[in-house]
Amino acid sequence: MEGVDVLGVLRQKYQGEIPSLFHHLETVCSEKEKGSTACLRNEEELKARFPQTYGRPVLHLKKGEAKKAHPLRVGVVFSGGQAPGGHNVIAGLFDALKKLHQKSTLLGFLDGPNGIIQGKYKELDASSIVSFRNQGGFDLIGSGRTKIESEDQLESAFKTLTSLNLDGLVIIGGDDSNTNAAILAEYLLQKGSKTKVIGVPKTIDGDLQNPWVAIPFGFDTACKVYSEMIGNICKDALSAKKYYHFIKLMGRSASHITLECALKTHPNCALIGEEIAFNKTTLKEITRQLADLVCKREREDKNYGVVLIPEGLIEFIPEIRALIEEINAETSFDKQALTESSRECFISLPEEIQKQLLLDRDPHGNVQVSSIETEKLLISCVKKELKERSYKGKFSPVAHFLGYEGRSALPSNFDANYCYVLGMSACILLKEGLTGYMAFVKNLEKPASEWQMGGLPLTMLMCLEKRQGKLKPVIQKALVDLGKAPFLHFKQIRQALALQDDYKFPGPIQFFGPQELTDTTPLSLSL
Amino acid sequence: MEGVDVLGVLRQKYQGEIPSLFHHLETVCSEKEKGSTACLRNEEELKARFPQTYGRPVLHLKKGEAKKAHPLRVGVVFSGGQAPGGHNVIAGLFDALKKLHQKSTLLGFLDGPNGIIQGKYKELDASSIVSFRNQGGFDLIGSGRTKIESEDQLESAFKTLTSLNLDGLVIIGGDDSNTNAAILAEYLLQKGSKTKVIGVPKTIDGDLQNPWVAIPFGFDTACKVYSEMIGNICKDALSAKKYYHFIKLMGRSASHITLECALKTHPNCALIGEEIAFNKTTLKEITRQLADLVCKREREDKNYGVVLIPEGLIEFIPEIRALIEEINAETSFDKQALTESSRECFISLPEEIQKQLLLDRDPHGNVQVSSIETEKLLISCVKKELKERSYKGKFSPVAHFLGYEGRSALPSNFDANYCYVLGMSACILLKEGLTGYMAFVKNLEKPASEWQMGGLPLTMLMCLEKRQGKLKPVIQKALVDLGKAPFLHFKQIRQALALQDDYKFPGPIQFFGPQELTDTTPLSLSL
Repeated sequence: MEGVDVLGVLRQKYQGEIPSLFHHLETVCSEKEKGSTACLRNEEELKARFPQTYGRPVLHLKKGEAKKAHPLRVGVVFSGGQAPGGHNVIAGLFDALKKLHQKSTLLGFLDGPNGIIQGKYKELDASSIVSFRNQGGFDLIGSGRTKIESEDQLESAFKTLTSLNLDGLVIIGGDDSNTNAAILAEYLLQKGSKTKVIGVPKTIDGDLQNPWVAIPFGFDTACKVYSEMIGNICKDALSAKKYYHFIKLMGRSASHITLECALKTHPNCALIGEEIAFNKTTLKEITRQLADLVCKREREDKNYGVVLIPEGLIEFIPEIRALIEEINAETSFDKQALTESSRECFISLPEEIQKQLLLDRDPHGNVQVSSIETEKLLISCVKKELKERSYKGKFSPVAHFLGYEGRSALPSNFDANYCYVLGMSACILLKEGLTGYMAFVKNLEKPASEWQMGGLPLTMLMCLEKRQGKLKPVIQKALVDLGKAPFLHFKQIRQALALQDDYKFPGPIQFFGPQELTDTTPLSLSL
Repeated sequence: MEGVDVLGVLRQKYQGEIPSLFHHLETVCSEKEKGSTACLRNEEELKARFPQTYGRPVLHLKKGEAKKAHPLRVGVVFSGGQAPGGHNVIAGLFDALKKLHQKSTLLGFLDGPNGIIQGKYKELDASSIVSFRNQGGFDLIGSGRTKIESEDQLESAFKTLTSLNLDGLVIIGGDDSNTNAAILAEYLLQKGSKTKVIGVPKTIDGDLQNPWVAIPFGFDTACKVYSEMIGNICKDALSAKKYYHFIKLMGRSASHITLECALKTHPNCALIGEEIAFNKTTLKEITRQLADLVCKREREDKNYGVVLIPEGLIEFIPEIRALIEEINAETSFDKQALTESSRECFISLPEEIQKQLLLDRDPHGNVQVSSIETEKLLISCVKKELKERSYKGKFSPVAHFLGYEGRSALPSNFDANYCYVLGMSACILLKEGLTGYMAFVKNLEKPASEWQMGGLPLTMLMCLEKRQGKLKPVIQKALVDLGKAPFLHFKQIRQALALQDDYKFPGPIQFFGPQELTDTTPLSLSL
């Protein structure tokens, strides 16, 4: 079988349960919730920036009268980092378009939003999509991080969309990409374009959440892949009994991934950035807590352990957060321009970490927190602390970073199905002539037969934030809520996990076998 | 389902096909091959060191007359690093012991060979084993790297085994541990002990190979886990189109894991240490080849790629190999004691790599090649080379190390079944009163019904090597054979893989579903 992706080929045939509403697409229509919507804050400024699209109502998809649809011309684009399931958004969108009208057309813009600006696309037909159904990655059309936000970029996008005579554009992306979707929707309306814009909530980081979007797609699969690895490492720690594994997990600012993986695998410690920020825990205090863990376990003859670290941790440590905010707010770095406390903090960090803080920013103007080796920083801090305590036991740390392994994995049944239904929902929203909306699927913790689909006005999720010195509209990242079930549950069990070894070993994602194995939802949802 | 290992519990019930010979264990006996056996080299010295056990014949397990067995008292120990399937060796051994005689007893020595020296063990019964069937890790009894080789250690082991009145001891380990098994077998015979010693070939590294042992257990699962991750990273590279992933893979000296994973995933480049040693390729030349790859791909607008690097690579680069051999041969490091060429090589390496070369040696006296960040060394060399070439394209490298994730994973069906049959075979060899043998299973590439079991005299695999300044008997590591099918096949396809992106995405190990998915053998065997 060398050279054949046996599993991938088998997965092409998977089809999850489709909510019954979508069995007869021609009867599906949208129903407005009563009243207009607000935004998170900065209402006046946002109204001024989004005069056409601000305040529209939340929509729910319902069964209505069967209507004959017109053919639609729709474009689709991936924006930002990969998340498992992306291809299924396209498959769901394509299938729904074709079911509504065989003459509908789907164009895929190549390599992200830049494909729109430059007019680079390819037409997607059944044969080009078939081998990408239920597969990982974004390689059918590629992705990119270019933003469509400058006047020139918006103008280019307008020209492309107009010349292609598109009725709609589906932007599959995270918080920043959906902000872009809102800006583009507004711009196109103002220019009198017929092209409508719909966003789809994507990101493994899980930080695009609100009462309608319980979790963006990709989070489930990525956490399952990371948890497979963490479980394997826990098993290894328990067997070898000689290593402390410090595992940093992708996820940008928010600690959703770390929390979900901690619930799945029961490590000895999982740092939650949001809690550290809330308690204003300093690096020194975190170091002390970790050294305490090592010492306590040593007394029980356990010279091993597993510690999970969210990628964004460093931003939540108050003194470092202040430093990063000062760096993010300015376009170029000048040590002398820092406040005194931030300058002190900067100087106190190991040189390696200093360098990493000043590496190229991402296209959104943020410090690339993923480049900072927090796991190694913590190891060196704990080593130093143990030395100061004249600790005589063993401490053999191993640093890991799990990230790229999970972003393009074969999507779990949950993500495969969720994405397919998101794609179908986006199609219906376009059919209904809506723009500036994000497609959503509610009741995700229940079987797909109980899912409820709809659209959320993007402006509702927005506020203004300073980025590279300028106030910009943003969709606020949803951080871990310290008052909600996933964190509260973890808080309740973590004391025991520190000393007892109650590791769990989820193993690899299974696509065949009993449903209790193949069709699980994220624990953060089901708790 | 939080807190329950659904998959692990389901896997406890897995039972692979058992060779029909083992359906009636009471009829199984051993048959000698004609003639005595030799060793690899240093025959006279080995004869002198193993006067009782040297030169015994190869044995094959056959159907014979049904005989009533006596109860046996057997000990078992894990030695060295984890490998998936270890618990199944114990399960197979236990089940076979009990089938032969219900009053047989199995003791597990705790935390490796040190458990034998210190007399720390626990009795294993059906209830203690049940939840470990088909599970990863060695945590039922732990493992360790202590060697039983000094006179004191041998004497302590003799005392423990005698006081426990053991008929047999099964040592589950790699090349060094099986060398220890041979030494202990010889020692016990000389002391008139009744305890027989049988080795079982374990190591994910795949370097314990010979005409009878096509592959040690654990290799299959570890390669499948690494290939899942590599495939995911390939998919990500192909989607994001902006990163070069340099992935170092565990495996000690030999490049078997890298070769197997390359065959499974088709990366753009996989360095094979043995080929580099054969061609005497220098670090500079490797760097040039990698820089060529980057430049050629850049011309095709491909600023991304995946490169696999065996952990032991650094030992195979001729100038570094010479240096490491000089370091390994001496108990303490003195730069001035190095030959001139090695001193030059040492000085030319980045300081970080110098430090890593001098880190604590492993208990076998070797430089810990796994601690050397070869992936980062290569990245920095390629960066420098590209700069010297005034390369104008992009080069964004990301370093990975895959190792601990695979050593304790849930064993594949192949490893689960192979191990179970190895455990049963070890039991039969003990029943036959044999010592100084390694259990083997032949025809592994075929269905289990065609497997052939037997015993191999350990001295047959041995020669003398200098370790820490002393000549010691060792089982020679089997390196990748440049004249055999797995490498030849890779050599044939690699030119195309460099520029075309023919990545494969094996996905996670599946335990349910069609057999073509669940019951695959390593490609290195089936080719």
